[in-house]
Amino acid sequence: MSLDRYIREVKDFPKPGIGFKDITPLLLDPAAFKSSIELLYEKVKDKKIDKIVAIESRGFIFGSALALKMGVGFVPVRKKGKLPGKCLSYTYALEYGEDTLEIHEDALLKNESVLIIDDLLATGGTAEAVACMVEKLGAKVSLIAFIIELEFLKGKDRLKKFSVISLIKYS
Amino acid sequence: MSLDRYIREVKDFPKPGIGFKDITPLLLDPAAFKSSIELLYEKVKDKKIDKIVAIESRGFIFGSALALKMGVGFVPVRKKGKLPGKCLSYTYALEYGEDTLEIHEDALLKNESVLIIDDLLATGGTAEAVACMVEKLGAKVSLIAFIIELEFLKGKDRLKKFSVISLIKYS
Repeated sequence: MSLDRYIREVKDFPKPGIGFKDITPLLLDPAAFKSSIELLYEKVKDKKIDKIVAIESRGFIFGSALALKMGVGFVPVRKKGKLPGKCLSYTYALEYGEDTLEIHEDALLKNESVLIIDDLLATGGTAEAVACMVEKLGAKVSLIAFIIELEFLKGKDRLKKFSVISLIKYS
Repeated sequence: MSLDRYIREVKDFPKPGIGFKDITPLLLDPAAFKSSIELLYEKVKDKKIDKIVAIESRGFIFGSALALKMGVGFVPVRKKGKLPGKCLSYTYALEYGEDTLEIHEDALLKNESVLIIDDLLATGGTAEAVACMVEKLGAKVSLIAFIIELEFLKGKDRLKKFSVISLIKYS
């Protein structure tokens, strides 16, 4: 199944000049959504993975389904102030300003192998921050997975320390 | 499997006097997370359901897995400004202040039967707002599902027009 026809481009969102890749048509189609999870599963099933770390909030949609299919634990990374337990907080630079993400300190064990997942790879700044958080907790980044990759933003260069996969690429 | 032992109470979060029910230990345990989706599935499988409408962002975690298991489409309800397409916006009162949620106008068809899902039923204000949004789009609320219900907050009374289920109840 060719998944790219389930991605809708919305012009000028969230600001003028940006063509936003909207995954909601894919989610709306049960066969396409199922296929996206199966394709991810095929790409990761032979890797050693103990936990899936999913980035709020679209990463949750794919991460939870993949964690269940793989039979591994699901760990949410959230915006500051949302997770109730003791957290590792990590602030990183955005194009304009900065953002802070949090992960529960007890969510990962030392030397566990982690798959990080989000819906879209743009410049890679958020995924890089999450990879850094995973490593600060003593775990290892086995793989970083995305549904969509905007190749022209060269996020993979920024993540070159890691194995990166994606299902749909825009060059 | 008794799921309540996978819920951690975090005292004084997000503010003093509140005992927050933390679902992350359940998500961290593959068997417990799988069991939660199977228990939801058993409760809903005989209902007519065309789409699952999930509330950002913890509702996404359970909604996506359940939508895949049921073979129905997944529709996210998000905070204002996050969804790129043409949206129905709905502002509703909170205990202090108000909040605005959005859903894509083309996500539901007239007369479709919808399951609304979120992780926790407290006073029911958010679920009531989402049910109203579903009906404004011409669809029907078949069921509202939660993992956790705080019975002492009487959210079910507020949602008495609807069928409501939950897996773990605190009285």
